[in-house]
Amino acid sequence: MSEPKVYRTELNPVHFLQRSAAVFPDRVAVVHGSRRFTYRELTARASRLASALRAAGLEDGDRVAYLCPNTPAMLEGTFGVPAAGGVLVPINIRLAPAEVDYILEHSGARFAVVDHELVGLVEGAEGTEIIVDGDSGEPDDAYEQFLAGGSAAFEPVPVADEESPISINYTSGTTGSPKGVVVTYRGSFLNAMAEIIETGLSYDSVYLWVLPLFHCNGWCHPWAVTAVAGRHVCLRKVDTAQIWELLEAEGITHACGAPTVYIALVNDPAARRLPQPVTVSMGGAPASPTLLERMAALNFEPNHVYGLTETYGPMTVCVKHPEWRELPNEERARLLARQGVSYLPHEEVRVVDESMTDVPRDAATVGEIVMRGNNVMRGYYRDPEATARAFEGGWFHSGDLAVWHPDGYVEVSDRAKDIIISGGENISTIEVERTIVKHPAVLECAVVAMPDERWGERPKAFVTLKSGQDADEQEIIDFCRERLAHFKCPAAVQFGELPKTSTGKIQKYVLREREWAGQEKRVN
Amino acid sequence: MSEPKVYRTELNPVHFLQRSAAVFPDRVAVVHGSRRFTYRELTARASRLASALRAAGLEDGDRVAYLCPNTPAMLEGTFGVPAAGGVLVPINIRLAPAEVDYILEHSGARFAVVDHELVGLVEGAEGTEIIVDGDSGEPDDAYEQFLAGGSAAFEPVPVADEESPISINYTSGTTGSPKGVVVTYRGSFLNAMAEIIETGLSYDSVYLWVLPLFHCNGWCHPWAVTAVAGRHVCLRKVDTAQIWELLEAEGITHACGAPTVYIALVNDPAARRLPQPVTVSMGGAPASPTLLERMAALNFEPNHVYGLTETYGPMTVCVKHPEWRELPNEERARLLARQGVSYLPHEEVRVVDESMTDVPRDAATVGEIVMRGNNVMRGYYRDPEATARAFEGGWFHSGDLAVWHPDGYVEVSDRAKDIIISGGENISTIEVERTIVKHPAVLECAVVAMPDERWGERPKAFVTLKSGQDADEQEIIDFCRERLAHFKCPAAVQFGELPKTSTGKIQKYVLREREWAGQEKRVN
Repeated sequence: MSEPKVYRTELNPVHFLQRSAAVFPDRVAVVHGSRRFTYRELTARASRLASALRAAGLEDGDRVAYLCPNTPAMLEGTFGVPAAGGVLVPINIRLAPAEVDYILEHSGARFAVVDHELVGLVEGAEGTEIIVDGDSGEPDDAYEQFLAGGSAAFEPVPVADEESPISINYTSGTTGSPKGVVVTYRGSFLNAMAEIIETGLSYDSVYLWVLPLFHCNGWCHPWAVTAVAGRHVCLRKVDTAQIWELLEAEGITHACGAPTVYIALVNDPAARRLPQPVTVSMGGAPASPTLLERMAALNFEPNHVYGLTETYGPMTVCVKHPEWRELPNEERARLLARQGVSYLPHEEVRVVDESMTDVPRDAATVGEIVMRGNNVMRGYYRDPEATARAFEGGWFHSGDLAVWHPDGYVEVSDRAKDIIISGGENISTIEVERTIVKHPAVLECAVVAMPDERWGERPKAFVTLKSGQDADEQEIIDFCRERLAHFKCPAAVQFGELPKTSTGKIQKYVLREREWAGQEKRVN
Repeated sequence: MSEPKVYRTELNPVHFLQRSAAVFPDRVAVVHGSRRFTYRELTARASRLASALRAAGLEDGDRVAYLCPNTPAMLEGTFGVPAAGGVLVPINIRLAPAEVDYILEHSGARFAVVDHELVGLVEGAEGTEIIVDGDSGEPDDAYEQFLAGGSAAFEPVPVADEESPISINYTSGTTGSPKGVVVTYRGSFLNAMAEIIETGLSYDSVYLWVLPLFHCNGWCHPWAVTAVAGRHVCLRKVDTAQIWELLEAEGITHACGAPTVYIALVNDPAARRLPQPVTVSMGGAPASPTLLERMAALNFEPNHVYGLTETYGPMTVCVKHPEWRELPNEERARLLARQGVSYLPHEEVRVVDESMTDVPRDAATVGEIVMRGNNVMRGYYRDPEATARAFEGGWFHSGDLAVWHPDGYVEVSDRAKDIIISGGENISTIEVERTIVKHPAVLECAVVAMPDERWGERPKAFVTLKSGQDADEQEIIDFCRERLAHFKCPAAVQFGELPKTSTGKIQKYVLREREWAGQEKRVN
């Protein structure tokens, strides 16, 4: 580590917690059911965690996995792990045990903090020390006992280089195995600042944890909300009745999440116009004009965003122009349903053709969205080849197809890759296909997205059976359910020949076209 | 220049203008009397300027000085000069010709953009090409003709290293010659983001240019206001009647400046309660509780800040706690009159004793404020010795004395150095003393601040005449006025012996104590 420069501090989001604890020590930082604790306490808990991890043998750069719903433990880890000099590995709690195993092993996680309801997911884990959180806050809770072994006076490990990793976020890319998206201290800090500015977070904000913290580190919001000494309202699971109750009872001002959640929310019997405006950043899948209109009527202020795990979550936002307020509802909703422009501090996204030339801004020519800069991941963990592929030509390739409007706003029209997004979760079609072909009766198969009213999209499998073999739809689905997270399993199976090119390549787009006939777009 | 990284963009505030021009091209960016132009036009003008400067021979890193009031040309330079790869040198327009000469020469300015009313200040300049701005916007204006020679399609010169200088801001330090404070692209970008967050700038903001743009680059506000596509309302000079008119006519939401300006404003006959709240960041000198109370009554929301040119302007802010609203006026005003805590993204300031140990947070023990991090200058231009002195012990020494309150807020109590701040302008007492002793009748002298109702402080000279020589007060003042900016000249001169230590050192604090007898503080 070189001599520190008087004119430079390495950007580090842990600083945000220290600052809020210094300025607003007595302010409530976390609400979780009947539990409430202040910024002084949150800092003390994160420090104890860091201290206890070091005492347990954690060394600089060691990985610490998390398998938790949106609980205080998960929030504490978002600060405590980097404070300890470790690297966060938040894992999707809807994965199957084998998938969790893969991630623990691939990341080389030394520790894992696991919610008591999820211990079944890590029973096969070897080489990772498991700390179980009973989520009770009681002294006899194993997690609380672990914290009690640490010191609240622990000083965060200084960051020698802001470009070093703070977190590895595993994502189903286009290939079967999840890839570890490495994000940095610098990127997290700048993205948190960007979220504060674009979503208008302030010293008075109250944030409801609808968005899973394991998705791109809750899109950098643990850091952003803490920076403005906002209040974190935790949520173990997405329960629309409970959300409606908390929105009013806690005076929520901000939330995030996939459109699916808000479709359920506006259709809930408890739906009513809120007394206070609630800014909601929606991403993970495009939000429909219909949804945006209904939300506005209930006093939500939807903020339509777009991004990927590889871009720290959102990197574009549909920035609203005041003059749009004067437009007819339908026209306004159509403008707001676009993915928009880059967040204020970030480099402009581009929509390019295959030769990396910008497509015309004619709202018609389709190209790929590519991006570059402080909001792009450092690379895929232990996968230089995939990194090189993703960074071809000096830009990150989103794999998302879009048109570019004359006003510079992008609008996603389809995905180049075949990824399915179901309820905000990525599903790799290749991964599902690989599972299905393990079935003894299956010759070959192709999985594509089919539209689904509730989840946006769900996988549909097209299967060709081996000659003389037999299997029915339910058997294939059950076969998958034994091997994959349930949300990744096909919702329907159709048997028959697969359409192919002359060279024998399966034409998935033909299957998709059939499923989406009559729909305007090819994503939902 | 190394290969650009896909995951990194060098932080560069020029980006803010490009982004706002892309998202809000038709929005009014600049208002100047009857002139108004949009973000598309502002970008085009800044690009033309950059292009014309390159065509005129500007090379990477060349300095471009500005001697302008708060005009469009000055704003355009704040973007156009870095876009051209040059380094801005904004010069205080109240300096005397000899002082301007010194800065042009010391900075090695290749070009200087000079307002038509200020050409007298650069008549002796050699080696600097002068571009005169008639501030008319008319085609026959020399500045407009210069712009017309450039191309609106000019692409900003990319920044290879965000730690390189964007600007050199000359300041009267404690020694006679102004020192060039070098600030970086990285620091300017992060400080602009900090201003947006702490002062609540948003896409609806309208900013009135009361604060001179030549003071620490208008405390980074040209960049901050542009980032949120806010509206810049220019002002050639501080005229209270005009300010009152613009506050209402333009729907101003934000402004900055020294308390002196706002003392004049609230005491103006036109003073009235504003229909909209106006956030005012006040720094340069401590704001009194009385002023803060009066401003609040007129619907100003004062934001009390503190910093130095060496810290990009403000680096602390008196962050308000909601519960302070319930306190009696006087008590609240006393809390708000403190200088506060570091801006959200910055490292905490410290108050230390001579051994660099933190003083107790007892609101009583006096120490020096020291700071470190992304908001500290890179160093003094061409002055490694002064830089090393300022950075002793790995922290920047503000030279300001303060107490530390139990809640972590700092409050400036005095200045360790003898700098005088008069109407927001720094005056080096040593510089004034050096001028006075040039008078043939003067033996020695000492200059200290005396309290002044209008300007906060003004210099008072204590003079010992040579034996057998004679001079009166007016003669000394006139002598100074021929050699110094008028605001630096003594407001009073007293003749007699000077108090000295046994080793012969003049005890300036004894003189100061006499002048400030009966006052609670030693700064105003």
